Amino acid sequence: MRSLILIATAITLSATAAFAADEPISPIQPAKIANPAMVELGKKLFFDPRLSKSGFISCNSCHNLSMGGTDNLKTSIGHNWQKGPINAPTVLNSSLNLAQFWDGRALTLQDQAGGPIANPGEMASTHTLALSVLQSIPAYVAEYKKVFGSDKVSVDGVTKAIAAFEETLVTPNSRFDKWLKGDKKALTAQELAGYELFKDSGCTACHNGAAAGGNTYQKMGVVEPYKASSPAEGRVAVTKDEADRFYFKVPTLRNVEMTYPYFHDGEAATLASAVDTMGRIQLGKKFSTEENDKIVAFLKSLTGDQPDFKLPILPPSTDSTPQPKPFD
Amino acid sequence: MRSLILIATAITLSATAAFAADEPISPIQPAKIANPAMVELGKKLFFDPRLSKSGFISCNSCHNLSMGGTDNLKTSIGHNWQKGPINAPTVLNSSLNLAQFWDGRALTLQDQAGGPIANPGEMASTHTLALSVLQSIPAYVAEYKKVFGSDKVSVDGVTKAIAAFEETLVTPNSRFDKWLKGDKKALTAQELAGYELFKDSGCTACHNGAAAGGNTYQKMGVVEPYKASSPAEGRVAVTKDEADRFYFKVPTLRNVEMTYPYFHDGEAATLASAVDTMGRIQLGKKFSTEENDKIVAFLKSLTGDQPDFKLPILPPSTDSTPQPKPFD
Repeated sequence: MRSLILIATAITLSATAAFAADEPISPIQPAKIANPAMVELGKKLFFDPRLSKSGFISCNSCHNLSMGGTDNLKTSIGHNWQKGPINAPTVLNSSLNLAQFWDGRALTLQDQAGGPIANPGEMASTHTLALSVLQSIPAYVAEYKKVFGSDKVSVDGVTKAIAAFEETLVTPNSRFDKWLKGDKKALTAQELAGYELFKDSGCTACHNGAAAGGNTYQKMGVVEPYKASSPAEGRVAVTKDEADRFYFKVPTLRNVEMTYPYFHDGEAATLASAVDTMGRIQLGKKFSTEENDKIVAFLKSLTGDQPDFKLPILPPSTDSTPQPKPFD
Repeated sequence: MRSLILIATAITLSATAAFAADEPISPIQPAKIANPAMVELGKKLFFDPRLSKSGFISCNSCHNLSMGGTDNLKTSIGHNWQKGPINAPTVLNSSLNLAQFWDGRALTLQDQAGGPIANPGEMASTHTLALSVLQSIPAYVAEYKKVFGSDKVSVDGVTKAIAAFEETLVTPNSRFDKWLKGDKKALTAQELAGYELFKDSGCTACHNGAAAGGNTYQKMGVVEPYKASSPAEGRVAVTKDEADRFYFKVPTLRNVEMTYPYFHDGEAATLASAVDTMGRIQLGKKFSTEENDKIVAFLKSLTGDQPDFKLPILPPSTDSTPQPKPFD
């Protein structure tokens, strides 16, 4: 009897595994935290607006972890209320991307992390200034030394710590992932029908893998051109190859209910509108209202566990800390 | 033997109580949370930038709970990067203030909470717009109904919830409070000497009570006039009584190491400079460097338990949520 149960269990497990393996989207794996102290340091840095010239903008300003790792704006607000050129991609599950930024110009999270700090349109500081700020704060220096064994704060260490924190920002346990793992009740009939339609329509040609995206560059506007007012030209800016014009990194669909508005220019305000546009310009399909509703229902099942940690408390500046200059 | 110990304990306790009662500053009491669901709702609202026109500025932007409940700027940054007229006071222990704002123009935290949302120089929304945003988000409406028994979100409910959250933001257990409660080792000799000098110099005439301030209005510039470039005129703006010109609410000194820069205009960048100015213009004293150091050492012992909760996750907007207008 006991061996029968064991065999039955083995068959079930194997069926589940096979089932999930046949799907183009795979479950998000929980983060494995190799260095908790580095993650804690990175978390503080991620929330610290003193990395900006103004003392007002932190990584979390535009990649707000209370709001799906985005700012939910078409394009971001930078130093001196400058209008950003592109929609801020979510930081959630960004460790699963083949590269960072819409055009993939940073190969790693660590490469990416240094960019906005010194970008005059974003945080508008310099690496030198940001390091002076951190170096002037004994609690940061002590924490940095514990992590990196040096009391000289460097860009390499700072960006490494931010990246280590960002690597923890994966969102497992969505209802869709539960379904993938064999819990057939995790999705409603409508959501499941939406997933089937999503696959049958060819959406999974680009939105596949654990992040349901993030792993290829694709042209925006395959069947019909995409009419954009945004100046962003995509991957060509990196490769200088005209064939890469309007190629963008496919965005993840994980937590997509929280990461509105959509596309690199943020021009699609709703999921319904994003699905409609994608169907038309990428696949040459006009989804009916019922079809669109089904796909949107499926997409909303991709919301996983959101960041789950205490608000970090930042060590105070000292008399020698360079002061923020918000209005210079 | 046992009764001897009991008597000894009773004497010790009574001595401690008498000791603390004799001091002009009393310990911060932990928050008593009457309605946890209301506090949770208020916490989300406090962190929600959708209460602003831009979708970018939340209560937490200028009263950053990672940074002592302030923005650590001279004056705050408002909608469209407007320069605020006054230093953002800390929200920590603000429930202990006799009134809110530097001029006391709001009598309660609830009164205060409505102000910045609709102030064109701060969050630049309107109460009508902010309520439409919340009303369009089913998860907010459900939470609101659970707390207030109505599914019609009102300004009264929203500001009540924010105030309920803010009432939890007290900071007990500073080293100074431990000393007040009888732990003689909680302060160093330098800090204790600083406290004695603080009292002997007359600082406690204004900085007294649980918050070491916040309970009276006092003139800025008693002995010498305070030379300010700030247009803030103080309590006269509320009372219209010329006798109240340059009277400001005495700021709390709790967590003062974290709430730099100082004064209503943020012109004192460091504690040393704030102590020096206060000595001269309020008390007619020129503290020596050694005296200043001692007082600063004491002030740094007033840092208590900082906010200790998980980063709130905000419910997403829906297709009917009014969209933020950061650049209009």
